[in-house]
Amino acid sequence: MDQTGSATLSFENRPYVLSAASVAGPAEGKGPLGHRFDEVLTDDRLGEKTFEQGERKMLLKALRRSMARVGLPMAEAGCLLAGDLLNQIITASYAARELSIPYLGLYGACSTMTEALLLGGALVDGGYQSRALCAACSHFSTAERQYRFPLEMGTTAPPHAQRTVTGAGAVLLGASPLPHTGFRHVRLEAATLGRVRDLGITDANNMGAAMAPAACDTIGRHLADRGMGAEDFDWIVTGDLGDFGSRMLQELAREAGLPLAGRHMDCGSMVYRPEQGYNCRGSGCGCSAIVLAGHVLPELEKGRVKRVLFLSTGALMSPLSACQGESIPGIAHAISLVHEE
Amino acid sequence: MDQTGSATLSFENRPYVLSAASVAGPAEGKGPLGHRFDEVLTDDRLGEKTFEQGERKMLLKALRRSMARVGLPMAEAGCLLAGDLLNQIITASYAARELSIPYLGLYGACSTMTEALLLGGALVDGGYQSRALCAACSHFSTAERQYRFPLEMGTTAPPHAQRTVTGAGAVLLGASPLPHTGFRHVRLEAATLGRVRDLGITDANNMGAAMAPAACDTIGRHLADRGMGAEDFDWIVTGDLGDFGSRMLQELAREAGLPLAGRHMDCGSMVYRPEQGYNCRGSGCGCSAIVLAGHVLPELEKGRVKRVLFLSTGALMSPLSACQGESIPGIAHAISLVHEE
Repeated sequence: MDQTGSATLSFENRPYVLSAASVAGPAEGKGPLGHRFDEVLTDDRLGEKTFEQGERKMLLKALRRSMARVGLPMAEAGCLLAGDLLNQIITASYAARELSIPYLGLYGACSTMTEALLLGGALVDGGYQSRALCAACSHFSTAERQYRFPLEMGTTAPPHAQRTVTGAGAVLLGASPLPHTGFRHVRLEAATLGRVRDLGITDANNMGAAMAPAACDTIGRHLADRGMGAEDFDWIVTGDLGDFGSRMLQELAREAGLPLAGRHMDCGSMVYRPEQGYNCRGSGCGCSAIVLAGHVLPELEKGRVKRVLFLSTGALMSPLSACQGESIPGIAHAISLVHEE
Repeated sequence: MDQTGSATLSFENRPYVLSAASVAGPAEGKGPLGHRFDEVLTDDRLGEKTFEQGERKMLLKALRRSMARVGLPMAEAGCLLAGDLLNQIITASYAARELSIPYLGLYGACSTMTEALLLGGALVDGGYQSRALCAACSHFSTAERQYRFPLEMGTTAPPHAQRTVTGAGAVLLGASPLPHTGFRHVRLEAATLGRVRDLGITDANNMGAAMAPAACDTIGRHLADRGMGAEDFDWIVTGDLGDFGSRMLQELAREAGLPLAGRHMDCGSMVYRPEQGYNCRGSGCGCSAIVLAGHVLPELEKGRVKRVLFLSTGALMSPLSACQGESIPGIAHAISLVHEE
């Protein structure tokens, strides 16, 4: 038996995506997908005293919008599976406090959105929950000061750096479509659990390179486990490899005999325009969350694409592990989404 | 419909606990359960250069022991669901790097062990994975310096404080018992997802009080959802409320009409002797993990107890949220374990 074979889960009942909502920061609103987000913030502190409190309010906005869009009270969400980039994932946990619904906190760095969908999908598919609300969020100003430097320093980013996206995305899954509202054509059919891959990258300003091997590994296993090829997907979307990491993924995939053949796109590269000057463009777990909720899922719902392999990609280091000389482990979980009439 | 009813999952196929392993620090080895742990460390840095690297080695020891005990290679673990207390859960993530198996990182603070069992249980019960390795770990020296003060300061702990347990616990779940080895009498029958509860406690040295309301809420919902009473369980075991939090839970439960009637015990209170001088005794996600793996599961396997409700309890704050004046949100997930012949 192929030891890795069992890491691809098949969702027999194919849970439905019922709703999705995205809230994006001002810089993300100026990007190519700015018009696709449900809300673009003008004040990235959202009127709060601290950026952390603002980030929490942003996540709550996305969660509440996803429920309001289908006219359901929050108590009907089933449970919340969510995470963010802050220490002790305080954004998700304090948001969960406001909502008073069952909560499972996840930490997958920027892979959190697909980790939530994979686990939420299994809970709904297996009949353990009738619905599950999956979410991830990140904020440039909170992440920058936690992971790198005080904002006041105005540090210049090196060429391979990516900018942490300010954004929150929420996706409501359900066992059956709602009678008169919500999405009804997007379903989860399978998912692949990521393995930690580490090629020894130690440059914390080049996380795209650290995550590309994990993305390649998971794409390869997903296709092999299902006996499929890249051509079976309209899009293969990675979370936040950015421009450099995306080129590296395409190279690694070619070497592994998996030509992605123009089907690959990366949320990090899609979220900003080159002229915005953010080097290798976007990262952060909010990056794949808002692109999924604001762009990929609506395109699937409309039938403009029929099958998408979506992989949020995470770099599992910490400032402390970097100080202690560790390289950066990467991970990518994949979820296969289909349009069905 | 009771909106909270759906938060209790029923495991129709009742996954088996196949194996469990515990590695404990020197202070924990001197506690009342010292002889129950598979390994008691004499050097809590495990020969590594930093405590963080030592903590990772400790978790790896527990994971490898749990597999070695049943003679399976690590590749047969299915997937790893794990978390710890360090920022970006680097202990679990770097351990997962060494093992190269599919990995889902969780952050539930000290509730992580039951969060892992609940999700791992659903993955196995639903047929998504044939096995799942669930683990949690904490380390006094890494947690103390991350959450409180540099170790060199030698700060005196206030009366309600608890000591972070140095320990790692791992539990292997499987869809069916192994032919010639391992546990074969302990099964998971149900679980209840926790909700965040916050009664406004702001004293980071009194986390037992912050977590007790969440434990009471989850116990009450678990019993109500299943139409059971406390008397249906031999033990109701909380993770790390400690001495003060345990008294508070008993009081809250009495007020809620749920007399725990001598069935309640707390891993935090069980892990140290009063004369060890650790105030309200143990905490940390390794606390419930080692007591579960070293004591509760073996007692269930032997049939000395027949049914146990096990709840790891987590305080979801961060040093930053405390500085920003936030109170401490608590959470508790519950898992119901039964002995079956």
